[in-house]
Amino acid sequence: MEKFMDFKEYLAKISRYEQALSLIYWDLETYAPENSVNYRSEVLGELSERHYNLFVSDTIAEYLDYFSQENIFNSFCEQDKALIKVTKKEFEKIKKIPVKLVRKLAQTTTKANHAWKKAKECDNFNLFQPYLEEILVLNKEKADILGYENNRYDALLDLYEPNLKTTEISKINEYLKENLTPFLNKLLEDGEKPQDDFYKQNFDFNKQKQLSLEALKFMNFDFNSGRLDISVHPFTTKIGPRDVRITTKYSPLDLRYSLFSTIHECGHALYELNIPEAFFETPLDEGASMAIHESQSRFWENFIGRSFPFWNFFSPILKAILNSFEGLSIESLYKGVNIVERSLLRTEADEVTYNFHIMLRYEIEEALINDRITTKELPLIWNDKMKEYLGIVPPNDSLGVLQDVHWSNGSFGYFPSYMLGNLYAAQFNSKLKQDVPDYSLELEKGNATSILTWLKENIHQYGKMYEPQELIYKVTGETLNPKYFVDYITNKYTEIYNI
Amino acid sequence: MEKFMDFKEYLAKISRYEQALSLIYWDLETYAPENSVNYRSEVLGELSERHYNLFVSDTIAEYLDYFSQENIFNSFCEQDKALIKVTKKEFEKIKKIPVKLVRKLAQTTTKANHAWKKAKECDNFNLFQPYLEEILVLNKEKADILGYENNRYDALLDLYEPNLKTTEISKINEYLKENLTPFLNKLLEDGEKPQDDFYKQNFDFNKQKQLSLEALKFMNFDFNSGRLDISVHPFTTKIGPRDVRITTKYSPLDLRYSLFSTIHECGHALYELNIPEAFFETPLDEGASMAIHESQSRFWENFIGRSFPFWNFFSPILKAILNSFEGLSIESLYKGVNIVERSLLRTEADEVTYNFHIMLRYEIEEALINDRITTKELPLIWNDKMKEYLGIVPPNDSLGVLQDVHWSNGSFGYFPSYMLGNLYAAQFNSKLKQDVPDYSLELEKGNATSILTWLKENIHQYGKMYEPQELIYKVTGETLNPKYFVDYITNKYTEIYNI
Repeated sequence: MEKFMDFKEYLAKISRYEQALSLIYWDLETYAPENSVNYRSEVLGELSERHYNLFVSDTIAEYLDYFSQENIFNSFCEQDKALIKVTKKEFEKIKKIPVKLVRKLAQTTTKANHAWKKAKECDNFNLFQPYLEEILVLNKEKADILGYENNRYDALLDLYEPNLKTTEISKINEYLKENLTPFLNKLLEDGEKPQDDFYKQNFDFNKQKQLSLEALKFMNFDFNSGRLDISVHPFTTKIGPRDVRITTKYSPLDLRYSLFSTIHECGHALYELNIPEAFFETPLDEGASMAIHESQSRFWENFIGRSFPFWNFFSPILKAILNSFEGLSIESLYKGVNIVERSLLRTEADEVTYNFHIMLRYEIEEALINDRITTKELPLIWNDKMKEYLGIVPPNDSLGVLQDVHWSNGSFGYFPSYMLGNLYAAQFNSKLKQDVPDYSLELEKGNATSILTWLKENIHQYGKMYEPQELIYKVTGETLNPKYFVDYITNKYTEIYNI
Repeated sequence: MEKFMDFKEYLAKISRYEQALSLIYWDLETYAPENSVNYRSEVLGELSERHYNLFVSDTIAEYLDYFSQENIFNSFCEQDKALIKVTKKEFEKIKKIPVKLVRKLAQTTTKANHAWKKAKECDNFNLFQPYLEEILVLNKEKADILGYENNRYDALLDLYEPNLKTTEISKINEYLKENLTPFLNKLLEDGEKPQDDFYKQNFDFNKQKQLSLEALKFMNFDFNSGRLDISVHPFTTKIGPRDVRITTKYSPLDLRYSLFSTIHECGHALYELNIPEAFFETPLDEGASMAIHESQSRFWENFIGRSFPFWNFFSPILKAILNSFEGLSIESLYKGVNIVERSLLRTEADEVTYNFHIMLRYEIEEALINDRITTKELPLIWNDKMKEYLGIVPPNDSLGVLQDVHWSNGSFGYFPSYMLGNLYAAQFNSKLKQDVPDYSLELEKGNATSILTWLKENIHQYGKMYEPQELIYKVTGETLNPKYFVDYITNKYTEIYNI
């Protein structure tokens, strides 16, 4: 149908602005000289506005109205139907939010981000609190505009994890708390904590880079369609079709940081790189949701990168590149990347404790959005919850309530995606083990082909065609079930900690 | 005046598209993964079209009409007058050329560039000739549309060097030929050619990079407003205000290549970086012309970088970084970067022979555009002229008529800028010596401050305010005069070659 081709060409036009914007963002985080930042922001503003105007337009509205007519819609194949649905959902969501609010949010978060950095630096929550308050007010306004049935937080959650409700997250939280809290306590009281001092050295950055490159080679990362660079915080960005760039950071304190960051980001990258050409430059050319995306990065980082079979393969490579660790067994190296600790920082948390960090953030966000607590109370509430869930209290707010950038960026509703990513990953992993029973044997030989193929066929190839709940059901035959995660954690760490 | 502020804001909007485009070009030449190129071209196309539509618009036409009214125009300061004039000239030039022709040229040059690469690789001019023919036809059409008084080539020349006529270039050529040909012959027959074998080694690329960085430090290149990267062909690109990026290439065959490329490109960069903030994001925020730009890069590369005082300062640094050249005197190192040879390639030509390479290209271009010769005859004509001007004949077309990329890019009228750049540089240098008599003494100490200040005050600070001929007159009190170049060359090389 010619009209549908025109529609796709118009979507491609919109996508080209996204590609330019992505490149500018990537450049700002990697190579842009310091003094260019203010002027570059104006370029971002200009292209973003143009992008917005192309998308929230009568042109798109007309296309969508036309293609949504029942008899016409039904004539499309599944993929084209998905394209229409996904575009429509996005269009209606963005259209609802007044430009004035978008601008106000942008202005406020720019200031808030600045204030947050300062507050963190000076360990002074009060410097950030007024901005956080303003962001909260705007987010509540946004949630009310977007609409919800039972819980205002649902509206924000839906921005990151479509159709998942607050009640569902709360249920998951309870299940995890119930099952993981006693396990964590047992682990730390009765278990044998492995050694990991050997990782905490200042290894030459070139050698760390070589290690990252070896990990990427193992993962089949295609350097003709991507890059590895350095940035302050590791990230993945899809510039456009066949160009997905990841970054890492080499730490002088801990070898594990860069290696697992690289593997994590490459997990994101493989997802984007495996989306089929037919979806290029359309809204289907991305992951199903933030959480499904995170399931891919966490799968590679933890389920593969922190697995024994992988270390069986990777240990000799590691030893050769570092020209070190001679006396250490594969088991020691493996156990050393699986240390469980009551720690202060989310980004440094292990697999077992990670979700607790999310739960407390989720509970705080949800209570803020529903006016049950105030921003002024946050430091106290944060510390109470840290004590309750993790058994430690931050010595200061910089290492506590001020640690994450998200709220200063206006991202309320985002945190649960991290937790959900872990749960999805465990559920996918369980199905993968059923479908490819000997994947561990291949892994031991450094062969990831079966895994890659499975991920591609079951998840990656669909891009954004399916909503997360549809996808997990399609792949595993059931809806999201936190049991898989709990089973995985208890099995793995019972063995490692010898309890 | 509020309307004038609106006009400038509209120009800034246009500039933001240029900035995005520049970043995409830079990325394509430096870091973009191979497979992304085709999709990225579409992004370039989309943003270029938008840029074109914003510039060739009723909005701009109305602003220009309004501000050009005599009583209004006269109320502006010199700088604002220049902004109106420059914008108007650019607008009228671009408006004249039909979109159809622009597109046709873009399509043809894309194919031609591909064909040129292949032709050069296979040493087969016939593979390129049909495309060159097509480009020539389109360039003639473009020249006719742009208009001219006496010579069709004037119209193309004006695109790169405003208001300079073909007759003027021809006169300059005759003068240079008359004075430099006998000098070159004498030099090569009677002179003592210095040694330079020591430069022709495979020096570690990291050391070459360190040398480049030292040269940039000496030139006061500001890394907070720019970068140094690597590309196949060294280039300079202004991404936007306070962001000017240069590239170099480290050669395993010759140490001089990367060093002088870096200095050359930094000469371009300093020009752009010294344009005042008041011009940012307007058409005045660039150099006066291609040739004036080239005068800056050549000034630093040759008049400074290949001068004795500079080598007096730089030799110890060079020796320390390379940990080599111990027995070589400053004089040997200096003379080794000033070798004169009858060589085949323009890009590798020395100061004395360089302009001959341009003359033959200019003569060929001018004759082609005026239908006095045909593209089919080019290899023969090229070789004849090489014999006449440089005394050597290329062994094949790859090293002859196929060596430069310019024609495949559709750039007819560009080559003279390189020659003019040398001449402007000599004339500026002569004036600089008068104004700052002891600049050599400062140079010897590695201090370039007086030079930088002079260039900034006399040239850089004006951006594109003045046309090249106005500028040279303003700075030196006379119009372009090739005598300065001939004097410089004969003095310098009489001494080096001891004739």
